[in-house]
Amino acid sequence: MPNHKIVIAYEGTNYCGWQIQPNGVSIQELIQKNLSLILRQEIKITGSGRTDAGVHAMGQVAHFRSDEPATQKTLFSLNSLLPPDIRVLSLEHASDDFHAQYSATGKIYHYHLHLDKVRNPFNRAYSWHVPYANVERLEQATRYFLGTHDFTSFANEAHTGVAAHDPVRTIQRIDVVPQEGGVRLEFEADGFLYKMVRNITGTLVEASSGQIQLEQITSIINSKDRRKAGMAAPPQGLFLMKVHYGDHPTT
Amino acid sequence: MPNHKIVIAYEGTNYCGWQIQPNGVSIQELIQKNLSLILRQEIKITGSGRTDAGVHAMGQVAHFRSDEPATQKTLFSLNSLLPPDIRVLSLEHASDDFHAQYSATGKIYHYHLHLDKVRNPFNRAYSWHVPYANVERLEQATRYFLGTHDFTSFANEAHTGVAAHDPVRTIQRIDVVPQEGGVRLEFEADGFLYKMVRNITGTLVEASSGQIQLEQITSIINSKDRRKAGMAAPPQGLFLMKVHYGDHPTT
Repeated sequence: MPNHKIVIAYEGTNYCGWQIQPNGVSIQELIQKNLSLILRQEIKITGSGRTDAGVHAMGQVAHFRSDEPATQKTLFSLNSLLPPDIRVLSLEHASDDFHAQYSATGKIYHYHLHLDKVRNPFNRAYSWHVPYANVERLEQATRYFLGTHDFTSFANEAHTGVAAHDPVRTIQRIDVVPQEGGVRLEFEADGFLYKMVRNITGTLVEASSGQIQLEQITSIINSKDRRKAGMAAPPQGLFLMKVHYGDHPTT
Repeated sequence: MPNHKIVIAYEGTNYCGWQIQPNGVSIQELIQKNLSLILRQEIKITGSGRTDAGVHAMGQVAHFRSDEPATQKTLFSLNSLLPPDIRVLSLEHASDDFHAQYSATGKIYHYHLHLDKVRNPFNRAYSWHVPYANVERLEQATRYFLGTHDFTSFANEAHTGVAAHDPVRTIQRIDVVPQEGGVRLEFEADGFLYKMVRNITGTLVEASSGQIQLEQITSIINSKDRRKAGMAAPPQGLFLMKVHYGDHPTT
């Protein structure tokens, strides 16, 4: 059966997250339902990973198979049926072994921090308002997370109740990039544990405001204890920007 | 009575516009109501000009008088009472003759055009999706509007049913600035007639896509006939960015 790769952008505000759940409307469900309608067969899509309620994506990736190859017309029909806060940006044929989750070799997430004293009315749904954060200390704090670590202290158990069996990940960069009204943190890694970006961001912000000392960060990482780290940053500041697939032929 | 200048940002999506109207909630009404509560007297605020339903502001200006001078604490209380899509960014004392509308010497508006083929789900409420627009022709078309003209062809009558008695305005610049997913038009002028930015933008887009020829634009301006120009661009792409007050002592 022909295999396909789709790239999806969505505003997560109105959804229970990417993944199908018994209570609430998910992005995965809406795409599956409408693809099934258009292709007149039951379609299952598999994403690169879940995103939680309120989290956004500019470059989520999924794959699906269908009896007949889907076309650019399928993409056009799909976007006319989807609500305007979900857009499928591209659809391409993928090699048979392409898997949106298992073929992924890395991901980029952005987290938006809004630093103005008075909250800007336009980015409520797209940033975390932390006017007390100090950017210089924030940058210093990011350095402790770079490289290869066991990130158990920054991982929540997934809804399955099972923690990741391999909690070691390599963070290539956490850049603090100035943007209107604040900064965005750009995280790039070979992969992320469940809630890892939000948990690291919460700790970075607490470190930047002095609630956590910079010297404590290494021992928090080494403790492998979620309770030692800072709070999770709220979902609405988080954007899944890109999923890398190395030199996989589809990309 | 002490006079004050406030600068206001708002997302216009959920309001009937700046100005108080019998049907619908306006931004002016909410600020007046809450200022009156805090200052325990009836407060009237006067804006630099109206903005229509769906139009946004990053720098709307208004003035108001009160028996006792308002303070930064007043500002803080006001923002805690206002809904999160309206923020008063600053409050300062103004000289007695300061008038948000009559003291204004110029304004800056931005209009956001979204040019990607597939509409980005994040800027539905903040841009006009015109994937067919040609940026080079758009830039060429802007030049016809620069300088001092009678802009009757680009003015709607205000709700009062009365056209502006002096329809001559001077546009200092219309810059086409690239931004993510498209361009923004930056308009700066000594003042704008009712719906002038949206009417000029609609004509610019029609010129950029070839529906209106560039050579026609001068005759459209000279005709002083609203029906000769292009459609009005929709409200959600428009932002009132700044109101200038020359060297008025309050600014």
